[in-house]
Parts: sequence; C-alpha cells; structure tokens
Amino acid sequence: MKVMEPVNIGIIGLGTVGAGTVNLLERNANEISRRAGRHIKVKGAAVRDAARPRACSTSSLELGTDPFELTDDPTIDVIVELMGGETLAREIVIRALTNGKHVVTANKALIAVHGNEIFRVARENGLVVAFEAAVAGGVSIIKVLREGLAGNCIEQVIGIVNGTTNYILSGMSKSGRPFDEKLDEAKRLGYAEADPSFDIDGVDAAHKLTILSSIAFGIPLDFANVYVEGITGITSQDIAYAGDFGYRIKHLAIAKRIDSRIELRVHPCLIPVEHLLANVDGVMNAILVVGDAAGPTVHYGAGAGAEPTASSVVADIVDVVRTLTTDPENRVPHLAFQPHSLSPLRGGPMGDVETAYYLRLLALDQAGVLADVARILGQRGISIESIRQRGTSSSDTPVPIVIITHRTLESRIESSIPELESLPSIAQKVVKIRLESMASHPE
Amino acid sequence: MKVMEPVNIGIIGLGTVGAGTVNLLERNANEISRRAGRHIKVKGAAVRDAARPRACSTSSLELGTDPFELTDDPTIDVIVELMGGETLAREIVIRALTNGKHVVTANKALIAVHGNEIFRVARENGLVVAFEAAVAGGVSIIKVLREGLAGNCIEQVIGIVNGTTNYILSGMSKSGRPFDEKLDEAKRLGYAEADPSFDIDGVDAAHKLTILSSIAFGIPLDFANVYVEGITGITSQDIAYAGDFGYRIKHLAIAKRIDSRIELRVHPCLIPVEHLLANVDGVMNAILVVGDAAGPTVHYGAGAGAEPTASSVVADIVDVVRTLTTDPENRVPHLAFQPHSLSPLRGGPMGDVETAYYLRLLALDQAGVLADVARILGQRGISIESIRQRGTSSSDTPVPIVIITHRTLESRIESSIPELESLPSIAQKVVKIRLESMASHPE
Repeated sequence: MKVMEPVNIGIIGLGTVGAGTVNLLERNANEISRRAGRHIKVKGAAVRDAARPRACSTSSLELGTDPFELTDDPTIDVIVELMGGETLAREIVIRALTNGKHVVTANKALIAVHGNEIFRVARENGLVVAFEAAVAGGVSIIKVLREGLAGNCIEQVIGIVNGTTNYILSGMSKSGRPFDEKLDEAKRLGYAEADPSFDIDGVDAAHKLTILSSIAFGIPLDFANVYVEGITGITSQDIAYAGDFGYRIKHLAIAKRIDSRIELRVHPCLIPVEHLLANVDGVMNAILVVGDAAGPTVHYGAGAGAEPTASSVVADIVDVVRTLTTDPENRVPHLAFQPHSLSPLRGGPMGDVETAYYLRLLALDQAGVLADVARILGQRGISIESIRQRGTSSSDTPVPIVIITHRTLESRIESSIPELESLPSIAQKVVKIRLESMASHPE
Repeated sequence: MKVMEPVNIGIIGLGTVGAGTVNLLERNANEISRRAGRHIKVKGAAVRDAARPRACSTSSLELGTDPFELTDDPTIDVIVELMGGETLAREIVIRALTNGKHVVTANKALIAVHGNEIFRVARENGLVVAFEAAVAGGVSIIKVLREGLAGNCIEQVIGIVNGTTNYILSGMSKSGRPFDEKLDEAKRLGYAEADPSFDIDGVDAAHKLTILSSIAFGIPLDFANVYVEGITGITSQDIAYAGDFGYRIKHLAIAKRIDSRIELRVHPCLIPVEHLLANVDGVMNAILVVGDAAGPTVHYGAGAGAEPTASSVVADIVDVVRTLTTDPENRVPHLAFQPHSLSPLRGGPMGDVETAYYLRLLALDQAGVLADVARILGQRGISIESIRQRGTSSSDTPVPIVIITHRTLESRIESSIPELESLPSIAQKVVKIRLESMASHPE
C-alpha cells in the first residue's frame, strides 16, 4: 500500500465554522483518513486579526492575515473559504480557481449571488467548488438533491432552513412570549447576530432557496426572483389562534413546480401540527423534497453551529480528496472506508446491552405481588421508573402489571424474569420490550 | 458539445422494482440525461418467464430469460440486478464484474451476506457496485453515511427500515386491532409477502442494519453478529399500555458505538411519542444518525415500492454514468444539471400563487361585520373554511376575527384586503399568513 502525501488545505476565516473545521479535522483525523484514503493537513489559515483568540489550536498551521498568500501558495490543493461576505470572498474564490485549486465554501450569499460566475470559472479550470455547508448546516441536502434524487423530476422543495427564525417562532409557540423577547434570547444564546435582519427578514433563507431550487430544477441561480417575507409581523396572538385551528407557524422556503412555472418564495406559513415540519423546533432545520419517483422525503438536522457546519465542510473536503486520490472509477469506497482500513467488529453479548425496559406481568393475586416484584428487581439493582396495575382488584381476575424500569443491563432483566415467572401469583410469561433513549436534538 | 453514445444497461429481473426502473428511466429520460450528461438506454432485460405480463413496456428492449447473456454482452456497460435472492444473484454479479461491468443492485440480502466477496472482486476489476436501493427505498441513506457524514465519528444509527413491520405496528397503534388482522391487511395491500417471515421476524431489517453499520463504523459486513427479534410477540394490549406511559412501539434496527464495542440489534422498542421516529407511520422509513460533529440527523422517506426504490436504483446508475462520462475531477455538475442543460427560470408574480390563507381582523362592532367580511371574500370567489370570533361580544371592545380560507389565488386575497380594511367596523390592518399544504406521505 503506497502511502500518499497529505492533501494540503488553506482555510480563509477562523471564526465559528473555521475553528470548528480545524478542530474536527484534528479530532477525527484517523476516521477521516480511513475514509478519504489520505491524510488532510491544514497547512495555513488567513484571518483578519492574527492576535485574536481562536476556538481552535493554531500551533500546527501557518497563521497569516493575507488570504491571497494561501490562494497563491503552490503547495496548497484546496482552499476552504469560511470568511463570509460577498465581495472579498468572491475575489478569493476566483483567484483560487484561477490558480488551479479546488474550493470548499459555506458561503450561501456568495453562491446565491455569484455562483453562476464562480462555477463557470471552475469549469474552465476543471475544478470543483463544493458548498454543502451553505445550506442547512449538517444536513447533506445538496448531495441528496444533486445525486440521491437524480432520477426524479423534482416537484417541491420546502424547507425550514433558517435556525434563527425557527428558534424564535418555536420559542414563541412554546412559551406564548412575544417576538422581541425571543429575539433577544436568541441573540443572548448566539443563535442570532447583533444585526439579525438577514435572518429575520428572510434574506438568508432566500439565499438558501436560490441554491436549492437551482439544483432541484436545473435553473441558473436567480436570487432576484425569490419572493421574500420575514417573520417580524408574526405575533404570539397569531401563533395561539393558528394553534386553535390545529396549525403551527413556521418560516418556510418554498420552491414548487406548477406546470411549467416554478414558484420561489420565502414567508411564514401555517402548517398542520401533525406534519413532520411542524415538529422541527429550535435551531433545527428540515427540508421536505417531493420527487415524482421517491415521493416525499424529509432531511432533518442541525442547521447551524460550529460542528454541524464543519461536518459538511469536511464532507466536501473528503469528496475532493477522494476525487484527487482514488481510482476515478471507484471514487467512494464501497463500504465508505478504504478496504485496508476496515476494523474488525467488536460486538458483545446482548446481556451487556443497556436500555430501559417495559415489562408486563399478569398477576393472579395482587395482595403481595407488587412487593415481590419490586424485591426481585431491586435485588438485581434494577430500579423502577413507574409501575401501574391495570383494571380493578379482585382476587380471582388476573390483573396486568406494567413496569417501566430505568436503564439497566439486559443480563439483569434476563435473570430476573424466570424468578418473576416462578412467583405463584404470576400467571403468564413476562412480556419484555426494550425502551430506547435517542437524541433527536443536539445535547 | 460532443454528443456521447448512450450508456447501455442490462436489467436482471422485471418485477416491481425492475419494471419501476424501466418506467422511470423512460419517463424522466430528459431530466436524467440533463443531469448525467448522457442518455441511459435499457438495452436488454432478463426474466424468468418471458411470457408473463409486465408493469412496464418491453417493446424497446431485448427481453430474454438468460441473465448471463446480459453479463456477457460486450455492448452492455452496467448490470442492474433486481431479481433478489442470494445464490443466483451472487453468481450474476460476480460474472458481471469479472466481465468488466459496473453493477447496481437493490438486493440487501446479497450485500449483507456476500458483500465482502463482491466488493473484493469489484476492486480487483476497478469497478463500482452501487446499492443505495438496498436500504430504505427512496431515502439516500447510503450516500449520506458514506459521503455526507464522512467527517464524523458515527455514534449511533437507529432506523425504522422495514415498511411491513412499521405498517403493522402503526396500524395496530392507530386502530387498536390485533397483529394478525393488520398482517392480513398488509398482505392484501401488497405491503407484505405471502410468506412474511423475513419481514416480521426481523431478518430483512438485520440485513439492512448489517449494511448501515458497516459503512457507519468501517467494519466488514457481519450479518451473523446482529441480534434479531421480530414483532410477532407484540400485542395491541402492549401498544395501548405503552401509549399510556407516553410511548409508541416501533421495530428498530440499532447500531451503537459503546466505547470500543459496537452493538448491533434489531427488535421492537418503546420510544417517546414526541420523538420524530415515533411519528413515522405506515410503510415510511426513517433513519436517525448521530455523528459527533453533525449531531442527530434524520432521513425520512418511502422505504419500499416500485417508484421510490427505482429512484435509488436510477440515482446509482446516474452515479456510475457520471463517473464514466464527466471530467473525473468534476464528477457531479455544480448545479446538479450539466451546465449547457440549465433551463431559464420561468417564475411568475406572487398574485398567481395559490395557497390557503389565515386572515386576522379586529372588529369594532360585530353586528354586521361577519356578513360584510363574508360578502367581500365571496365576491372574489374566496371560500371560507372556518371563521372564529375571539373573546366576548361588546360593542366598544374590538374583537379579533380569525378566518381560514380554502385555497385561492394570492391576487384575490390581495385585492380583498383593502376593501376589508375600509369597512368602518374593522379597526386595524388585516393580518395575512399563508397556509401551505404539503405531502409527507405518498398520495
């Protein structure tokens, strides 16, 4: 196995996402090179103020203040633009491409406004500009639309794509508190900028919709044609009234194919409470895509934040590295990791599994049975979260007892069941169903 | 622009998914070649019984009964294996690879059991074996795990990946009816096989978990190490009791990294009703992935069916075609479609948009106001779905009136608002929020 030279990247901007990217590349260096087949090295970074403290270590990279030092450095293969803004960022990206470097960016405004030009320059130079992180943070919606749904005629793309507005609206909905208060809270928690107008006026969502609609329908990027309305007009009164009718109010980015027309619009919307999008809360994002073959699919995850956005930035870097490195006919390893990097499974017996448990017992005689059951579980260190006897007490009708335990080892539950079943007052086999705890929001 | 020869594919098996693939490639031929940069032609198909009627047209392809005629045909570039089963399918795939053909398959059993061998042969021949359709139908979960989350250390993959069991369990939950009845219903609707044991005993989910865990954690495919439990032991009583505690019962495929161990298990589970996975109903699938950087992401869509599965089969074919065709450094066009294929946006004015509407008015005097409001809306053909007056009636306290309209044109609403506001009894500007109807299940 030939060991290849690392791929050198230069990062422009070490703010939240830039620092997150440096940290992620360092923390998961092994897992990432098992997948990419090559080590990824942050050779240099350019920042506005080199003296400012950073949320990442900068000891192993060259830190400078001139982005063009990186775009012009012949040893750098990939420029990662994470500075934001349109004018200087555009100049940097064009220069990097002209110098033969692939580009990864998280900059939605740049792509929405200057994408047509940037992609033309990239094509002329045979280079990739990757921008997964520009829309919906850690959700791979660009990849899904460009590749996963490539067989479909896309009919609709409807998304909650701005974390700030969703945080404010779902906060107003949960607490009944007014817009201004929730906006202040969002600022305090770092979910809204000091000047939040790009988010709350819908411009950020419109940038993202511009990108999504272009790759969904095969139309050039056309930011000027998106209808944009923000959330500043939404009152807690309207949220409450909408709730009475069975709706939640969400700020949506909507692209719909209607016959040969395409509607592009960003505005608040009532949606039925039972719809998946109605239950996307806080800074989470979700995009509903309707394709003529796949039908509706929903793509949900954190829409912003250092690590989720860095997740997509690094995925784009890995994409570029895989393209540069592997057999072009076999760009992505079949099992995601390079074949020589697969590690053996270290499994374990089911007895070592830890979950909570639902147990159902049928008790013939209730008198002492609860005490017996509690004793048997307690002796094995199994603690009970709740216990309910179903139906009325009567010594000759068996009564179900339902128990939810706290998390415990399967082996403990398994050894307690025969003892429970041997109690004279227990009439049937004990029913055991595991109870899984799962995150659906970041901790 | 050089026009390239079409890519020729051979399809083994024209059952539900095979016929769906032929139909999809034909129906979306233009949209697909705009993306892939090349036309995709189904040159031939092999079936067991050539006389059997098919759910697709076979007039433009060579229909035979010998799959090896296709694997050995030098004019065919890609073999698409959609026959199912392990033994013959394995032989066909190995033969195709040995003959230098890329392979696309929807066969989870084949990959879970023989994948290690198949991928080795593919690598030796520099070929792709693509299998997005093997897990969760139209959901691009393979692509998301292999590429979209490539920067993450994956911690958990938890999925509802079997449509049959989910149809039965969510049906039992909604109706309170017993397992057997829902299983019969699933059979009648074509959601369960005549012999449903692979689905209801959890084997199908275990095949899919084997694949997902391998690409999530970088371990070889290891079907034998998955703990498997089906849903035949779940009673409507347990579903009801779990509901009382705030849980739903779902059949989950679970892969969890616990320190250096990896748990692989398939079994029924209680999950909190408010969790996104608890609200995945019928034959829909959803996979929760927790990465250390991206956090939790959820990927939701139809888990089976002709068109959703064909969507992933065609996406895989497009992947292969893009690899064969485009500049290897720029495999996927930046905007998903080939640059010369972008079509101009045909947008339209907001007045042409059709949605339902939420309107809030503040009425000073209720006496005749409802009649006036209804008349103004009615004159423009806007029909009212519901109308509510908030608070108590009193001539000097303004009372909010909230209206939900049926779908109508924005231009009609816009022209009615000034007239509503000019009513002497209306005290404030009218608040208008759009109400979007969106599918989240297939029609």
